[in-house]
Amino acid sequence: MISVDEALGIVLDVSKRLPPVTVPIHDALGKVLAQDIRAPDPLPPYPASIKDGYAVIAADGPGEYPIITESRAGNDGLGVIVTPGTVAYVTTGGPIPDGADAVVQVEDTERVETASSEPNRVRILVKINKGVDIRPVGCDISKDAIVLKAEELLGAAEIGLLATVGVLTVKVYPTPTIGVLSTGDELVEPTNETLSRGKIRDSNRAMILAAAIQQKCKVVDLGIAGDDEDEIRAVLDKALSTDNHIDILLTSGGVSMGDRDFVKPLLQQKGRVYFDKINMKPGKPLTFAELTTEKMKKVVAFGLPGNPVSCLVCFNLFVIPSIRNLSGWTNPRLPRVQVYLKNSIKTDNFRKEFCRAIIKWENNAGLGFPGFVAEVTGHQMSSQLLSMKSANALLELSPSGKVIPSGSLVSATLISDISGFTLGPKDLLSSDLDTLITQGQ
Amino acid sequence: MISVDEALGIVLDVSKRLPPVTVPIHDALGKVLAQDIRAPDPLPPYPASIKDGYAVIAADGPGEYPIITESRAGNDGLGVIVTPGTVAYVTTGGPIPDGADAVVQVEDTERVETASSEPNRVRILVKINKGVDIRPVGCDISKDAIVLKAEELLGAAEIGLLATVGVLTVKVYPTPTIGVLSTGDELVEPTNETLSRGKIRDSNRAMILAAAIQQKCKVVDLGIAGDDEDEIRAVLDKALSTDNHIDILLTSGGVSMGDRDFVKPLLQQKGRVYFDKINMKPGKPLTFAELTTEKMKKVVAFGLPGNPVSCLVCFNLFVIPSIRNLSGWTNPRLPRVQVYLKNSIKTDNFRKEFCRAIIKWENNAGLGFPGFVAEVTGHQMSSQLLSMKSANALLELSPSGKVIPSGSLVSATLISDISGFTLGPKDLLSSDLDTLITQGQ
Ligand SMILES: [Mg+2]
Ligand SMILES: [Mg+2]
Repeated sequence: MISVDEALGIVLDVSKRLPPVTVPIHDALGKVLAQDIRAPDPLPPYPASIKDGYAVIAADGPGEYPIITESRAGNDGLGVIVTPGTVAYVTTGGPIPDGADAVVQVEDTERVETASSEPNRVRILVKINKGVDIRPVGCDISKDAIVLKAEELLGAAEIGLLATVGVLTVKVYPTPTIGVLSTGDELVEPTNETLSRGKIRDSNRAMILAAAIQQKCKVVDLGIAGDDEDEIRAVLDKALSTDNHIDILLTSGGVSMGDRDFVKPLLQQKGRVYFDKINMKPGKPLTFAELTTEKMKKVVAFGLPGNPVSCLVCFNLFVIPSIRNLSGWTNPRLPRVQVYLKNSIKTDNFRKEFCRAIIKWENNAGLGFPGFVAEVTGHQMSSQLLSMKSANALLELSPSGKVIPSGSLVSATLISDISGFTLGPKDLLSSDLDTLITQGQ
Repeated sequence: MISVDEALGIVLDVSKRLPPVTVPIHDALGKVLAQDIRAPDPLPPYPASIKDGYAVIAADGPGEYPIITESRAGNDGLGVIVTPGTVAYVTTGGPIPDGADAVVQVEDTERVETASSEPNRVRILVKINKGVDIRPVGCDISKDAIVLKAEELLGAAEIGLLATVGVLTVKVYPTPTIGVLSTGDELVEPTNETLSRGKIRDSNRAMILAAAIQQKCKVVDLGIAGDDEDEIRAVLDKALSTDNHIDILLTSGGVSMGDRDFVKPLLQQKGRVYFDKINMKPGKPLTFAELTTEKMKKVVAFGLPGNPVSCLVCFNLFVIPSIRNLSGWTNPRLPRVQVYLKNSIKTDNFRKEFCRAIIKWENNAGLGFPGFVAEVTGHQMSSQLLSMKSANALLELSPSGKVIPSGSLVSATLISDISGFTLGPKDLLSSDLDTLITQGQ
């Protein structure tokens, strides 16, 4: 039986980047860039005012001056020159007229009453230095600078940068399309009707489809197949036909020791099975394969365990890194941190255990310093989907059969968006922080 | 000028929950539940096997037994009774026939060769206790138990739970629809052509639309309006007409001290402006209002600053909590942690500064314990969108004009999905951890 680390290594090796595609920038959000992006022109392209106020010649100093023009944002004041003894009105982001070398903000000026026939005048109240409140040409981005590098993940700021430099379409790695199949004679479509004897509702498919959507994948719902070799084969054949363009196939159930567990033999017929058991709890019967379709396309396949907790734990630990590798991420693994245990935990004798927990940030995590504190979410039986509810971390407990005492530090894989942390601002008083800052010195 | 905390308090007060809607469960992902969910039946609904193996009468003990039936998952073995001296084949998740009171896993048995005319026989190799490897009825979820409470956020596990209990549609709080407008005479649509003098490409709109999509909002692109009161009024009137169903209006630009900054006066005409300046850096000119449409619908409005960094910082600190309040979150604020400074930082004299930084988890964050270490992302000028690139946190620096030395602990608001952390598993050696666990005792 291979270890979790070996298994993840194999999954990452087999899960190769998808070929890049060119998309409009509004479809690039959340994707990994497959090209460097250069700025075709400097930003700002003209010397720009940082404030609303008056463009002046700094050497002129305080005094009363005529306003020769009002150069507002977008109005380039073409042909206007600020000469000694004159000033020009400018607005935030607007161009500085030729001749001026500093900006006096409006708060440091007074408008002077003038007859309507005369030019407007302003009183400059302060002495400022040359260059003040002007962004010179290219001060934010110089012409031809690389603003984004290949392999960067495109968030909102990066989309803004693409717009800034006038990139309308961009080469990115696509996110994979995932097909999801549930197997098991006991499964019925979720229904609000009374269950027949021996039947349960299929929860894995809705759960895994949702988990794949959270990873920004396109999904194909492959339904339920009974524990029948021909039936599962037919569904897989259809799923792998080119119409769906499935990159990752996920099944759940049918990977135990039962005489009707047909998933593994079918994956073997259609490609190469790399492993079918991992020394972990839950998730031991995870099967991993690479399939080759009739059109010679490679498809990564996971035979996930049927127990809902095992299924979702395996999705987090193995499928997400696989998705991220296909999507071009340079660091496909889930983030890991160390957390302090709120309560003691008994470890398994033989298998590495991934214990569902809620972690919270605390100002004093136990030793006087801030950190994460972990509380296990109820009963850890692998059928207990309630134990996944609200869980934002999987504690990694090495097998020893011993009890890890409360207050110990253990590694944890974070499985939820960071927004799952429940720390409110009330927990961070500045007095606490001052103390901590002092201690930190 | 009000403080950041006061401003956020006002934003949260004004941003009221949207009325709940009923949606199919596949549209409920990422939303907040607006009802309690009860289980209509127990899970498992029948005593279920945890293993592939043989349902036995525990008291029978090791020995050779005839297999009276094969009760597989979904096959309820109706009418079959395991009597003393007999066993039944069972598979994982399948029902336990009446009479049996434990399961012996297949690994602890040997199949016995029998003539094809005789019933199959198996050798049970171990003695087990009553109840072993059987999940009794309702052991995961008892009938009528509340499996999900109103105000819980629906992730993949929660969608799985809804499917488990046969809920097909569910009452949730909808996510808001957000209209995004850029203002400024200097702005042109992002183009790869050479810019005319005095023009820059509009980056805020693409950036803020992307940021709103990341928060799972529907978006309406309201385009660019020049610095012209009538033009902006016309766009706002059209945006607030009921066709769009906008819940949150976001503008950028036009909120400075310039004589053509028309956003604030227009928001005043259409509703109530709560504040127009915050004692912070960047983001000082943020304007916040509540508007009332002709059809008496309330719309939350933010006049975001035109500088791209100020714009995105304000989106993170104020708009996201507003979105989450409308979406029914019980804790709408972004998560905050304390981080150790990698380098010293000079603070502002007067305004609380939000410094863009990349935080990483380190095994030894400075004092021998694990924690977050923060590195500032380049020049912090508010026009420098490059400083937002890859940033996953905003350091919160109180104004004192002093230098905070490296190694100090400061508060940080996390602005990126947790997957932005770049810790790889190589950074967490078990030897390091053992040391830490010992220290933790
Ligand atoms: Mg099965
Ligand atoms: Mg402007």
